[in-house]
Amino acid sequence: MAELWFVGLGLGDERDLSRRGEEVLRRCERIFAEEYTAVLEDGALDRLAKEIGHRIDRLGRTDVESERTILDALDRSERVGFVTAGDPFAATTHVALRLAAERAGHTWRYVPNASIFTAASGFLGLMAYRFGRTVSLPFPAPGFAPTSPVVEIGKNRLIGAHTLVLLDLHPSEGRFLTAGEAIRILLERDPEHVGIAADREIAVVARMGSETADAWVGPALELSRTEFGPPLHALVILAPELHFAENEALARFRRPAPSSS
Amino acid sequence: MAELWFVGLGLGDERDLSRRGEEVLRRCERIFAEEYTAVLEDGALDRLAKEIGHRIDRLGRTDVESERTILDALDRSERVGFVTAGDPFAATTHVALRLAAERAGHTWRYVPNASIFTAASGFLGLMAYRFGRTVSLPFPAPGFAPTSPVVEIGKNRLIGAHTLVLLDLHPSEGRFLTAGEAIRILLERDPEHVGIAADREIAVVARMGSETADAWVGPALELSRTEFGPPLHALVILAPELHFAENEALARFRRPAPSSS
Repeated sequence: MAELWFVGLGLGDERDLSRRGEEVLRRCERIFAEEYTAVLEDGALDRLAKEIGHRIDRLGRTDVESERTILDALDRSERVGFVTAGDPFAATTHVALRLAAERAGHTWRYVPNASIFTAASGFLGLMAYRFGRTVSLPFPAPGFAPTSPVVEIGKNRLIGAHTLVLLDLHPSEGRFLTAGEAIRILLERDPEHVGIAADREIAVVARMGSETADAWVGPALELSRTEFGPPLHALVILAPELHFAENEALARFRRPAPSSS
Repeated sequence: MAELWFVGLGLGDERDLSRRGEEVLRRCERIFAEEYTAVLEDGALDRLAKEIGHRIDRLGRTDVESERTILDALDRSERVGFVTAGDPFAATTHVALRLAAERAGHTWRYVPNASIFTAASGFLGLMAYRFGRTVSLPFPAPGFAPTSPVVEIGKNRLIGAHTLVLLDLHPSEGRFLTAGEAIRILLERDPEHVGIAADREIAVVARMGSETADAWVGPALELSRTEFGPPLHALVILAPELHFAENEALARFRRPAPSSS
């Protein structure tokens, strides 16, 4: 029986790993990383590998989801590390991997870390208690334009809740859904304005947890025409009513966006 | 103009601080800590102070909420640290402090960390996307028995969502609302079973992020009679329907509780 350690790397770069996480990784015989549910800043994973004096093998989505590579490593080791940007279980797919490890007779351990799930509300100064269900928005594709994200945002607004909208990424192809594109997609799929409307104030957060983390608050249409710099971006669709402290916290982010297209 | 650094310490002990957080704290002239919204394991803050070679001044709720001590320190320093267990902005009250700092002409920076908001769902293997609004449950007091937590749990169940229930604590008096007490309170205030019922399966998580983190899943009444060991505890009231992967992940936590009273 081996231990599969799910270790969160946090949101910025290699400096966001905790000492607990670092100690664990030094004791792992093999370390695997996935970079398809979230990514750190460029080069962070390589610098981390160097610092802990340990190879980190990158696995694509197919390798992680087939589970074979990691189960094989568990069969041959006492301790295997699996690292992801953010928190390892914020991405649902990794629970499947730990279930597979359990079924194969192994055990798992968990080192949580910062996640966009809490950092976005924290940075904006919104109350974590006032968030409804989080929504994730896939890249548009021919014949694929689900309206479920808009419906979920609408439901959250009905119960007076904010919605965090996470944006799709295909880092291996260098493709990241930008906040501007995401807003345009949502506006297009929501002609009835159940979740979003052109003049309704929303928030964009970019590069949460990094040195260049920033946010902007303004009417959806205006933000849809804005460039927010490098990924990752996410949106927060605001509840119909803001608490006065939320309103004051958002004030500093209500300013001209960096560059309009 | 000084910088007020809000640094999350994570959930277990001093090893859960990130290197980014540690580097920041070493460069702060003053460091304040609060231990009333969440706490680390015994002694962790003292060990941290020793490791970074820096005094950490503990502030009570009144001192933090009056803001004077911290604003004074900002007036006399370039960089002041404010550290909390978990993530610094998961506790809403700290946004008020950063607004006060802004009003006084200072600026703030944020080092996110792991929070019970994500670690509880991660540990249980529940989908972070399937959580509705988080609820917090205060200690009962004479003439004070709000039913709003039950109502919120009921609303979340209506939209098919899980509810994280955070439990009150008064660490300075050594008082922590236990999972058992919390379940009994919720059962008492919910005769119509809108949120919870004696035979309905719920989850208890304890000491998330620490070495002794654990969870139990079972009927509410059964768990209400159980001792789960040292704090902090939290509850998850499950959605009416579980995804099959969630169900499988919960299976390992459906076992006899440590000791029944």
